[in-house]
Amino acid sequence: MEETKTDDKVMQERLAKIKNKIVVLSGKGGVGKSTFSVNLATALAQEGHRVGLLDADIHGPSIPTMLGLKDVELLSGDGGILPVSLGGLKVMSIGFMLSAQDDPVIWRGPMKMNIIKQFLQDVNWGELDYLVVDCPPGTGDEPLSVFQLIGDVTGAVVVTTPQEVAASDVRKSINFCFRLGMHVLGIVENMSGFVCPHCGKVTDIFRKGGGKIMAEKFKVPFLGAIPIDPAIGSASDDGKPFINSCRGTASSQSFSEIVSEMNKSERIKK
Amino acid sequence: MEETKTDDKVMQERLAKIKNKIVVLSGKGGVGKSTFSVNLATALAQEGHRVGLLDADIHGPSIPTMLGLKDVELLSGDGGILPVSLGGLKVMSIGFMLSAQDDPVIWRGPMKMNIIKQFLQDVNWGELDYLVVDCPPGTGDEPLSVFQLIGDVTGAVVVTTPQEVAASDVRKSINFCFRLGMHVLGIVENMSGFVCPHCGKVTDIFRKGGGKIMAEKFKVPFLGAIPIDPAIGSASDDGKPFINSCRGTASSQSFSEIVSEMNKSERIKK
Repeated sequence: MEETKTDDKVMQERLAKIKNKIVVLSGKGGVGKSTFSVNLATALAQEGHRVGLLDADIHGPSIPTMLGLKDVELLSGDGGILPVSLGGLKVMSIGFMLSAQDDPVIWRGPMKMNIIKQFLQDVNWGELDYLVVDCPPGTGDEPLSVFQLIGDVTGAVVVTTPQEVAASDVRKSINFCFRLGMHVLGIVENMSGFVCPHCGKVTDIFRKGGGKIMAEKFKVPFLGAIPIDPAIGSASDDGKPFINSCRGTASSQSFSEIVSEMNKSERIKK
Repeated sequence: MEETKTDDKVMQERLAKIKNKIVVLSGKGGVGKSTFSVNLATALAQEGHRVGLLDADIHGPSIPTMLGLKDVELLSGDGGILPVSLGGLKVMSIGFMLSAQDDPVIWRGPMKMNIIKQFLQDVNWGELDYLVVDCPPGTGDEPLSVFQLIGDVTGAVVVTTPQEVAASDVRKSINFCFRLGMHVLGIVENMSGFVCPHCGKVTDIFRKGGGKIMAEKFKVPFLGAIPIDPAIGSASDDGKPFINSCRGTASSQSFSEIVSEMNKSERIKK
């Protein structure tokens, strides 16, 4: 069993089989980072790519709920722990390891580094075109561990909402990437305007345009904006990626454009 | 100078001068926890209480922006570092210590514990009726440090939004309190329904009612719900507590009721 070879070499061998490692970041929580990660991974898998999705949010793993993967049991094989398969998508989250869904994970930093290492070293991801890593908000232990353990991150996608208080935290995330020498694939502005389903008029609940201004300021690509749509939250609660359940809406169209913008980067290996 | 006596005794002496220590928690980010903390502290101060507000969010300190306290310089006196005064409110945040507002704080857990210790030990809070501590989302280093350092926390207020994905993380927060033996003063449901300013009709962008159901399930008080109001986000960006700038609205009325509900707890020392 590979699990006995718990050294950096095993991890390096596993990571070498993954063409593109994409880290999803945000300075602030609640900007829709996990929703973005789930839908990015789903969209790439539906295009026929082999995709892994790693939930690196140790305290608030929402990926299992968002993909309808409750009460899943992890299996272990000769090549290590098997990620949970969902169509063409392979998923791993600490949520699969908790005995009760509402159990809090009361861990300090070093423990979190260990579990993220395990996710990369002991999980049998196999050959992948993309690994999408959903990091918790902030610039602390988890994103730092992800960056240091992976080593050759293809790039980061930074998700923000339009208002200044969120944007200020997201600027920190971009500076975090710059300091570490992590490439920024681009910025996504989420919750950009709300279309009232009753009267059709738009209200900028969280103001608008902050993401684009930020991208220009930092000279990184602006990948696009996704409007607020109550169906997105409901889709997440129901365990369905909204790009499938809300097909044809403004939100899912913006999303497709964002994925194709990201794939235009010369950093992405085909 | 007190700063040379950097031991637990100094901290205990400082904490003994604070009647009520209220910790604001949420399992998930972006639920409006900092907005709640700022307005809770402001509301208590306007009632004539002596109030301190400690921003324990090391990676994403938003309290300075929300109170319009940019470019503030910290001063040190015989009794330690002086918190920034704003009317009857005393405020401390790592945001006051960063050389540039967009600097990321790339710190692992132990460093975060140290700075929170400093905030309690080296800051001259003086006599206070309330210290409101705004914790970052999750159940990791920061809330754990706050709880362990303060020792006799009066209670926690847990902020959530109505949708299931957020609620699931908030249940973790409540279990976190139960495990540590921290009293739960109650649950607040934020972003509860959106009133379209054009047609007046309500859309439950993030569904509705999750906070109340959770409070019943865990047998903790439900303090109230605050509807979504675009003016709240704008007020925060402009550095003004919304209870002042949106006086008379449904949001600010719900807020007053929540504060008075919280103060009904027999844990609150008058």
